[in-house]
Amino acid sequence: MAETTKKGDGRAVWIGVDIGGTKILAVAFDDRMKPLGEDRKKTKGRSGAEESIQRVAAAVEGAIKAAGLSAKDVAGIGVGCPGPVSMEKGVVLSTPNLCWKDVPLRQILEKKFGVPAAVVNDVDAGVYGEYAMGAGKGARCVFGIFPGTGIGGGCVYEGKIVCGRNTSCFEIGHCRVMPKGPICGCGRRGCLEAVAGRLAISSAAAAAAYRGEAPALLALAGTDLGCIRSGDLAAAIAAGDSEVERVVRRAARWVGCGASLVINLMAPDKVILGGGLVEAMPELYLEEVRKGAMKHVMPSLRGVAEVVVAKLGDRATVTGAAAWARGLAVAE
Amino acid sequence: MAETTKKGDGRAVWIGVDIGGTKILAVAFDDRMKPLGEDRKKTKGRSGAEESIQRVAAAVEGAIKAAGLSAKDVAGIGVGCPGPVSMEKGVVLSTPNLCWKDVPLRQILEKKFGVPAAVVNDVDAGVYGEYAMGAGKGARCVFGIFPGTGIGGGCVYEGKIVCGRNTSCFEIGHCRVMPKGPICGCGRRGCLEAVAGRLAISSAAAAAAYRGEAPALLALAGTDLGCIRSGDLAAAIAAGDSEVERVVRRAARWVGCGASLVINLMAPDKVILGGGLVEAMPELYLEEVRKGAMKHVMPSLRGVAEVVVAKLGDRATVTGAAAWARGLAVAE
Repeated sequence: MAETTKKGDGRAVWIGVDIGGTKILAVAFDDRMKPLGEDRKKTKGRSGAEESIQRVAAAVEGAIKAAGLSAKDVAGIGVGCPGPVSMEKGVVLSTPNLCWKDVPLRQILEKKFGVPAAVVNDVDAGVYGEYAMGAGKGARCVFGIFPGTGIGGGCVYEGKIVCGRNTSCFEIGHCRVMPKGPICGCGRRGCLEAVAGRLAISSAAAAAAYRGEAPALLALAGTDLGCIRSGDLAAAIAAGDSEVERVVRRAARWVGCGASLVINLMAPDKVILGGGLVEAMPELYLEEVRKGAMKHVMPSLRGVAEVVVAKLGDRATVTGAAAWARGLAVAE
Repeated sequence: MAETTKKGDGRAVWIGVDIGGTKILAVAFDDRMKPLGEDRKKTKGRSGAEESIQRVAAAVEGAIKAAGLSAKDVAGIGVGCPGPVSMEKGVVLSTPNLCWKDVPLRQILEKKFGVPAAVVNDVDAGVYGEYAMGAGKGARCVFGIFPGTGIGGGCVYEGKIVCGRNTSCFEIGHCRVMPKGPICGCGRRGCLEAVAGRLAISSAAAAAAYRGEAPALLALAGTDLGCIRSGDLAAAIAAGDSEVERVVRRAARWVGCGASLVINLMAPDKVILGGGLVEAMPELYLEEVRKGAMKHVMPSLRGVAEVVVAKLGDRATVTGAAAWARGLAVAE
């Protein structure tokens, strides 16, 4: 089928896929990354890798159909996956929520659809999306940091996603920022993720609510960590919960401290902030991350990197995955 | 003159220059980076930029002469300079010891010698030298860390020196590893350099000597920080100064902590340790850096990066500068 796709005839369609813990989103894009149609499926990660891979394929087919196209219009597929991947081999090494292990996803999709496929870490895909179509357009070096339950990072350097030995990289969430800090999910202490991730924020905010110091949050979301969403934190702050504001600002400043490590090392043109917490509170995050970075960046590098908020929201990963697949095809 | 040099005829000669605080070393290399001749001049940094630039030119001429060649044999010149440079513009932005400020060194040398010149930070050049001809040969991603008075870092990724926005980068010495740590020369607290650089080591070692806990060091070098050399530390440890050993091992472990930041971010194939301290105590540094890195790298990245000792010693920068100039010429 690949042979029937002519490059540059305006009909080349690229499919981007974002595999999340609960849902799979597939979007068909034209050659300029304009979305043409999309489909969503539940991930059903617990039903095993085979079941969820079939759902990925079904979402791709659904997006093609929703765009009013057929498989022969597709030039390539890019997939953003949670967890480490081998971009070189097209293999998903492991996924935190899906119980995938060494899944040769590129090969599976290429066999099924007869077009080139690319497998990318979801954060890397998101940063590439912002580089190609969003807040990092045209920058020589972009570092993206996405605070959420984990704190993901990714870097696009001179047009390419930076990747590590056998694996995706930029694990900013597991850089240690507080030597005697709280225990992290990875087993170590004081990782950025443990200090500034969603769990650190919601546990401190819930404790404040429990102590009676965050009445708005208590009314909105209670004290169950599983129920406190980014929007609840933003709403509680807007309603005057100053203790919640203090907690979130502190976490955001730590994100700036984490970003400063990458600024000291890479001196990137842009640092892009994304993810649900940033989307819910963009001004707060921008202000505090800038402050935290300014404090921890070496003096001669202050002002080198512009800190900005992501533009593509939850479309960054699908867009980036599709754009990356397109870029690989052009480079060949 | 550039026109008279034929590429690939075996007569192309590349000059590498290493501008140090006290001396300038220039070496003429053949196309395979075999040294043919060299010259040294005193830097005389305090006599002003113009004087020391003339000395750079004289060292280049001296190396050509020592190799029994003439200027028309030279295909290109690469210069490793202390402090931040703009590789893109060929400008030395500032130098800690030489009082240079925005010196357009590439332009000056190209005008004088009529061949392409390249200006590179000295640590970057050293890492590139190890990548091209030493301990990092052929690796996809090499991170070099050189503990000394400062702690320099550099990265070669897919054959190119990684550079930052308008400047050289990988300022690992100014990444914060100890939030409430000692004051750094840059004005902040707890930078890797302040915790694990030569000054931190020699001041702790001198204090031990003063307290009578390091008799060998006291006999060898006294308690003047300016007189304690890497070789003295190594000799004192060999002679049984266990307190000196403890101080150096601790510093080396912090270097490993610093390296772990880059491993978490870049997942490089190799981490190369270089500089005078490492040369004087290679086994000690290797052991402790590996330990420190292992402790601070996220579990899934343990073992990704091989930690090795540099091979080229004080020839890394000249070799790398020349090899980089050669690489740029080939890429054109």
